[in-house]
Amino acid sequence: MNDTFVPFSNKHKMLVENQLRESVNRLKAPSVLKESMLYSLEAGGKRIRPLLLFATLEAFGEQTEKGLQTAAAIEMIHTYSLIHDDLPSMDDDDLRRGKPTNHKVFGEAFAILAGDALLTHSFQLIAETPEKFAGADVKMKLVLELAKAAGAEGMVGGQVADMEAEGKLLTLEDLEYIHIHKTGKLLSYSVMAGAILANANDKQVELLTAFAHHLGLAFQIQDDILDLEGSEEKIGKRVGSDEQNQKSTYPALLTMNGAKQALSQHIDMAKSSLKQTGLDTAVLEEITDLVASRDH
Amino acid sequence: MNDTFVPFSNKHKMLVENQLRESVNRLKAPSVLKESMLYSLEAGGKRIRPLLLFATLEAFGEQTEKGLQTAAAIEMIHTYSLIHDDLPSMDDDDLRRGKPTNHKVFGEAFAILAGDALLTHSFQLIAETPEKFAGADVKMKLVLELAKAAGAEGMVGGQVADMEAEGKLLTLEDLEYIHIHKTGKLLSYSVMAGAILANANDKQVELLTAFAHHLGLAFQIQDDILDLEGSEEKIGKRVGSDEQNQKSTYPALLTMNGAKQALSQHIDMAKSSLKQTGLDTAVLEEITDLVASRDH
Repeated sequence: MNDTFVPFSNKHKMLVENQLRESVNRLKAPSVLKESMLYSLEAGGKRIRPLLLFATLEAFGEQTEKGLQTAAAIEMIHTYSLIHDDLPSMDDDDLRRGKPTNHKVFGEAFAILAGDALLTHSFQLIAETPEKFAGADVKMKLVLELAKAAGAEGMVGGQVADMEAEGKLLTLEDLEYIHIHKTGKLLSYSVMAGAILANANDKQVELLTAFAHHLGLAFQIQDDILDLEGSEEKIGKRVGSDEQNQKSTYPALLTMNGAKQALSQHIDMAKSSLKQTGLDTAVLEEITDLVASRDH
Repeated sequence: MNDTFVPFSNKHKMLVENQLRESVNRLKAPSVLKESMLYSLEAGGKRIRPLLLFATLEAFGEQTEKGLQTAAAIEMIHTYSLIHDDLPSMDDDDLRRGKPTNHKVFGEAFAILAGDALLTHSFQLIAETPEKFAGADVKMKLVLELAKAAGAEGMVGGQVADMEAEGKLLTLEDLEYIHIHKTGKLLSYSVMAGAILANANDKQVELLTAFAHHLGLAFQIQDDILDLEGSEEKIGKRVGSDEQNQKSTYPALLTMNGAKQALSQHIDMAKSSLKQTGLDTAVLEEITDLVASRDH
């Protein structure tokens, strides 16, 4: 494992990070706004969403360049959601990936506005994809599905549900609603966007979306498990913090054994969906293995 | 005057308000989110941006239905910007059009998220415009220009510049930068979107954009004049509040006479641009007259 993934990841992370930097640098906008946007875009992270898009293009034998602007658009949406989630009125976080959060550096107003600008610019990036990579029909589909994944019926709806759930005991159904919307929809979109750019047929889109759905849930379950069993150094937050914050988690609802069983079921279903596509999904499979075995 | 505008305005306001309500009602999203979105969408207002779009379609002899979703999209962008601008970390306003602001009713977190959802949904509304009203090429153009008008190079950039200008003495150039970006770009987009939907030629788009540019500045100058000379009852805020808040205004920079002269120049240029289009711009002219003579 990891033989093909590490060089794939390094190469594609660099490409999307260049695209993000250039997209912001060329904006004719007040410099404090550009600095605030770049500060959070460059805070690092695994760039898992862009990598899922590129790995999907790879499965179709399509060139990376086709997906560069959409990959950057997705990362902008993800980044804006982190900036807004960290605000004092939301999760009130001072640190993100070991660095002060956006509002701690630029103040709340510019943090909110940087988020708004990133969200808006994501649609511009897709719209500006060169004709040779995507025609108007394909771009229109990408815009529509991104709005669905990121908006009230997707990520924003999930964040609202998460805030409403605070301090409440949730059912498994409630918990999955939150995960599927708050993080799952944008992960699924990353794979779906690759399929749309590759002009996949309906069956392939369906299978790849199912793959991403199970991958996203596996990711969340592993998150909850790591919160209880992980190494503090590796996961970067206090072990057991979910428990102390009275957050509903998979281990709390299913027992630790049940959570581990659910994790392995979702990994199996993710892989089985991939196999049925009949595509060369080596990199997507490696990403799936990494999710299953990650320790941070 | 007003003979054709009042019935035009009443009819089209109702149409766009129905579209806004239906668009939110059919969302599968947490009800508190939908309530927060609707609360601000239904707070009233002149719906000047949708009316500009419809009046432009009318000038081309195009049917209103073509522009319904785009008009609603523009009003969603405008509404989200008001919600975010009213937040404690921005303008910290408790009242908007005589009603408590969104965060006063729903709390800051849900106000921020309702704004995010409205911004995101505006792009979905354009993308979902039925094919018979707009093909993928037209919709792509609408998405691209909306992102430019609303984002870092448009409205959000203007809001950042406005916040940076607080308490500073501005030059006329700085003041116009703020107005052109904070409010002008979205007003211009409203006219431009009508032209795009009507498949206008480049010359017509250019003239109509110039019209909207001058109309937008005239609107702002009249705002500043009303703040000093208006009736408190009619404008809904204390007369002279800009002066007390040490806001740079046209009368402060140009004297009251100079401001009135600038107003009439922009109105003249707006009308002259309209005439050169060779279209039947009766309703757009009436809107221009209303801006020049409005008392609130």
